[in-house]
Amino acid sequence: MQVNPIQLFDAESSTFTYILVPPGSREAVIIDPVDRHVERDLAHIARLGLQLTHVLETHAHADHVTSAGKLRAMTGAKACVPSGCGIPPAEVQLNDGDRISFAGHEQIDVIHTPGHTAGSVCYLWRGNLFTGDTLLIDGCGRTDFQSGSADALYDSVTRKLFALDDATRVWPGHDYKGQSVSTIGWERRHNARLANRSREDFVALMAALNLPRPRLMDIAVPANQNLGLPHSV
Amino acid sequence: MQVNPIQLFDAESSTFTYILVPPGSREAVIIDPVDRHVERDLAHIARLGLQLTHVLETHAHADHVTSAGKLRAMTGAKACVPSGCGIPPAEVQLNDGDRISFAGHEQIDVIHTPGHTAGSVCYLWRGNLFTGDTLLIDGCGRTDFQSGSADALYDSVTRKLFALDDATRVWPGHDYKGQSVSTIGWERRHNARLANRSREDFVALMAALNLPRPRLMDIAVPANQNLGLPHSV
Repeated sequence: MQVNPIQLFDAESSTFTYILVPPGSREAVIIDPVDRHVERDLAHIARLGLQLTHVLETHAHADHVTSAGKLRAMTGAKACVPSGCGIPPAEVQLNDGDRISFAGHEQIDVIHTPGHTAGSVCYLWRGNLFTGDTLLIDGCGRTDFQSGSADALYDSVTRKLFALDDATRVWPGHDYKGQSVSTIGWERRHNARLANRSREDFVALMAALNLPRPRLMDIAVPANQNLGLPHSV
Repeated sequence: MQVNPIQLFDAESSTFTYILVPPGSREAVIIDPVDRHVERDLAHIARLGLQLTHVLETHAHADHVTSAGKLRAMTGAKACVPSGCGIPPAEVQLNDGDRISFAGHEQIDVIHTPGHTAGSVCYLWRGNLFTGDTLLIDGCGRTDFQSGSADALYDSVTRKLFALDDATRVWPGHDYKGQSVSTIGWERRHNARLANRSREDFVALMAALNLPRPRLMDIAVPANQNLGLPHSV
């Protein structure tokens, strides 16, 4: 049965964090937590009477710092990251097709979706797809740094994500317009960047974006490759 | 079974709008939609393939204008409002103890909770309590206008809401700190304004707040008493 996650927002970087709570369970998983909200997120865990078992990252973010390392230290949750993202302190290094089990019979499927970064993954749980910066609502993540590739993102989205059930709910890693959730069916038919567009058109479109370099990139990426914890000297 | 609503946010007034979708259903209900987001909210309805059957208001808001009238016109949904809020164009006038049925066997219970305004209600659906401005996360709505009453709010929260199951999830009408959801159990034990506080203390605390008059009040309240539609001349 499809149940919605709890969706939390960081207004500074427009980042979504998700808490996954199976019906009737006290065990929970968090995806892409943000460092500046670690107290807020722990308060939610406490208010709902939850035990955090896993902290998941979709990739090594360039626009904000994760709280994964702090949450691991404070709750005992396992840190789970894509194997291709260069995050050695995480004890679980995930590959395409892996499954994360929690709360008894709950399963989270790992889908490797290179493009925004070479190591990016999406997570699928009970018909909910957590897309990180791979697929956004009516958009997609940028592909111009961290081994990003418009070619790879095109394949990841059109071959892997658009092959999922139409009713799959899409929970993005960011939104800049106050939006919350979409579906695979809608994105396949209407996504402004990816619906009914050839690979060549998409690659040209992404190459022409000329986006500014993320302000926090030189701080955020090394920090996130250490789960947001200070590097030892 | 407890399933989370879809939670949408208006950053201008820090207002939450909720879409309630029962598992496996295409029929949905929306609570406290915001006028400036009517296109966003209709896009969510379309992306999820939903049919909107009811638009619910928790009260006549003073800080933003509702889109209830527009959504009714565009979707055919019924407008449902608390009978004590002076919103005559709504076809369903709700009283304490009423039930709204939708999507087959789904039931939303109406709980009259005067205090923020004399007519305010909360809605209870599948263990989720939509509290409007009556109970906020670690706080509560103001009680100094629109027939508000700190005395009445104290009774509404401590006698009616805190009597619900501890695990009841509290989905507020506003949040100003990036928070999303709480529980009745946590609020009864820890709410900064209402937990373990005498009526006299609470009334004195609310009287001492000296809040500024809401900027949009003279526009928003009359507009909301007409479901957000222009008054005919």
